[in-house]
Amino acid sequence: MKPSNPNTHSARFAGAELERFITQALERLGLPAADAATTGQLMAQAELQGSDGHGIIRLLPYARRIRAGGLNLTPTIKVVQERPGMALIDGDNGMGHLVMARAAEMAIEKARICGIGWVGSQHSNHAGPASLYARMPLAHNMIGLYFAVGNANHLPPWGGLSMLLSTNPIAVAVPAGEEPAIVLDMATTVAAYGKVKAKAQRGEMMPEGWMIDRTGAPLLDPARADEGFLMPIGGYKGYGLALIVGLLAGTLNGAAMGKAVVDFNKDDVTPTNTGQAIMAIDLSAWGDIDAFKARVDTLVRELRASERMPGVERIWLPGEQSQAKRMEHAAHGVALPPALQKQLAAFAQELGIPALQAL
Amino acid sequence: MKPSNPNTHSARFAGAELERFITQALERLGLPAADAATTGQLMAQAELQGSDGHGIIRLLPYARRIRAGGLNLTPTIKVVQERPGMALIDGDNGMGHLVMARAAEMAIEKARICGIGWVGSQHSNHAGPASLYARMPLAHNMIGLYFAVGNANHLPPWGGLSMLLSTNPIAVAVPAGEEPAIVLDMATTVAAYGKVKAKAQRGEMMPEGWMIDRTGAPLLDPARADEGFLMPIGGYKGYGLALIVGLLAGTLNGAAMGKAVVDFNKDDVTPTNTGQAIMAIDLSAWGDIDAFKARVDTLVRELRASERMPGVERIWLPGEQSQAKRMEHAAHGVALPPALQKQLAAFAQELGIPALQAL
Repeated sequence: MKPSNPNTHSARFAGAELERFITQALERLGLPAADAATTGQLMAQAELQGSDGHGIIRLLPYARRIRAGGLNLTPTIKVVQERPGMALIDGDNGMGHLVMARAAEMAIEKARICGIGWVGSQHSNHAGPASLYARMPLAHNMIGLYFAVGNANHLPPWGGLSMLLSTNPIAVAVPAGEEPAIVLDMATTVAAYGKVKAKAQRGEMMPEGWMIDRTGAPLLDPARADEGFLMPIGGYKGYGLALIVGLLAGTLNGAAMGKAVVDFNKDDVTPTNTGQAIMAIDLSAWGDIDAFKARVDTLVRELRASERMPGVERIWLPGEQSQAKRMEHAAHGVALPPALQKQLAAFAQELGIPALQAL
Repeated sequence: MKPSNPNTHSARFAGAELERFITQALERLGLPAADAATTGQLMAQAELQGSDGHGIIRLLPYARRIRAGGLNLTPTIKVVQERPGMALIDGDNGMGHLVMARAAEMAIEKARICGIGWVGSQHSNHAGPASLYARMPLAHNMIGLYFAVGNANHLPPWGGLSMLLSTNPIAVAVPAGEEPAIVLDMATTVAAYGKVKAKAQRGEMMPEGWMIDRTGAPLLDPARADEGFLMPIGGYKGYGLALIVGLLAGTLNGAAMGKAVVDFNKDDVTPTNTGQAIMAIDLSAWGDIDAFKARVDTLVRELRASERMPGVERIWLPGEQSQAKRMEHAAHGVALPPALQKQLAAFAQELGIPALQAL
């Protein structure tokens, strides 16, 4: 084993090492080896694409829930409703990654036949970043869409004070030709709650517009996040979007929505009955795949060549920054905050697995 | 015939009369009777639900394009690609209302078999308010989704100055039980361009946040709208959403996107090659329809009962205000701005059809 970098601030970790560590940890926590491997691979992928709020940082909260008995380690994921173009699957309170990997596979298979495929889940759990699943159809020359109900309510209806909605994310991935795929992954709030947590950890103030308090005044101190709520994008429009995503991913599937959403930050025991949905759109059903990709490339280049506002260095396409991180991380590894490194070192010792080795 | 109300400010028009007027006008302009009737009915419905920017106000611009030869009066709308769950239809440059009414029917039929159905269009035209089509599946116990590429670019990519994107709207309609259906209909910009035009007509200033000029400064005077551009909701998120909607409704269908979008305010001749997409989700595929509707009712009531911010009288669900207008308009008719009434009176005389009669 290589000695870990003495300067923890600049320590970098290879994707394969993150995957090894997460997989072994999940196995020790009781997941079957194959399930631990699938989850470890997806969580490492999340780190590699820069979704650090949904990567290895989630290992400890997952462990807490597993140990509290709030998650089924040996779920029977089964199809409860099916038509040629859709399925509803019951995740049996298993790890969300396993449920959604299965859902993505099914949606892709259905899209091959029907042109489009939609698979919803009930009794699932947190599955990591939305784009992880929206991207899965890309390799099959398909567009992917993903919707999920967030695992804690941070958003009231527009004009309200009762937190009945979550940051319910939308992700869409569209294949391109020579250009990187266009991948939008967004919470329906101005900031995702993970960003608030990150600000709190770093002891920084939040910009105005992220949160307001119960009087409607801007809330800037993330340590006071409990006293306010997140702002939806575009005011009532973002409230509407969060609601619609929740209806499609939650209510339609018989999964938790509104008051029924379990706050997984505060409750490790109650099954979350998380709802998600993934859709695949098979490009070949629309005609020539290469012609489509060429149209996307043209559009990407038109946008990138746009005249820019003063001070703007370049125009980004959704997903380009993640793609740049993915390449940088593949080449040089992923940096982890020192505090997280310490937690993971202690956790490795506790579980009796080899500590995370820096590059 | 009843005498028209001498006070044009308070004149109200019945939906049936609006439909009669639009239908006759379109027939005189050369549309086949059945096509004129379908379009007249949909345009009157737009008025009745309060989508006044997409109702009878569009008759004169449509007439201008028809007379300029920019629209095919006798299109052959045909299926160019098909799979069990999808179709791509070519509107042959006909009225968008006809193309999308056909698309909605097909999506509903496909959803009956596959659980979901998706129909995209190319060579279509402006079809009125997005929610008109998203609502069509409701009567079949289905969720409806609608995406469209707007017919003029008003939005640059985030950080850019070149107007390469339109206000590309999203509409989603979800059936409820005792409660009105939840219907979200939103442009991906803070304000739709129609709202800017309405402010200009009324000689009012726009609120900050609707538009910025090329230096990034707020643009408040709608008469100067040409010097700036609309702001996307949630900053780069709205840019991403507008792009994704355009990819799904335009690029995927081989319809206009980016630079290829024809500004139908300035060009009456070039075919717009408008792209739209409609999706139907059959509730029965997911299980018991009444159980789903009861869950939606519960959610609606939870949201409506939310504690409110100071000064907020009630919590609205998306679509409730349209529903209230629909009921009010059905009972008391639709008010039209005096300037529009005058234009329509002159137009009736020109076409030799009976003038619009007030209630």
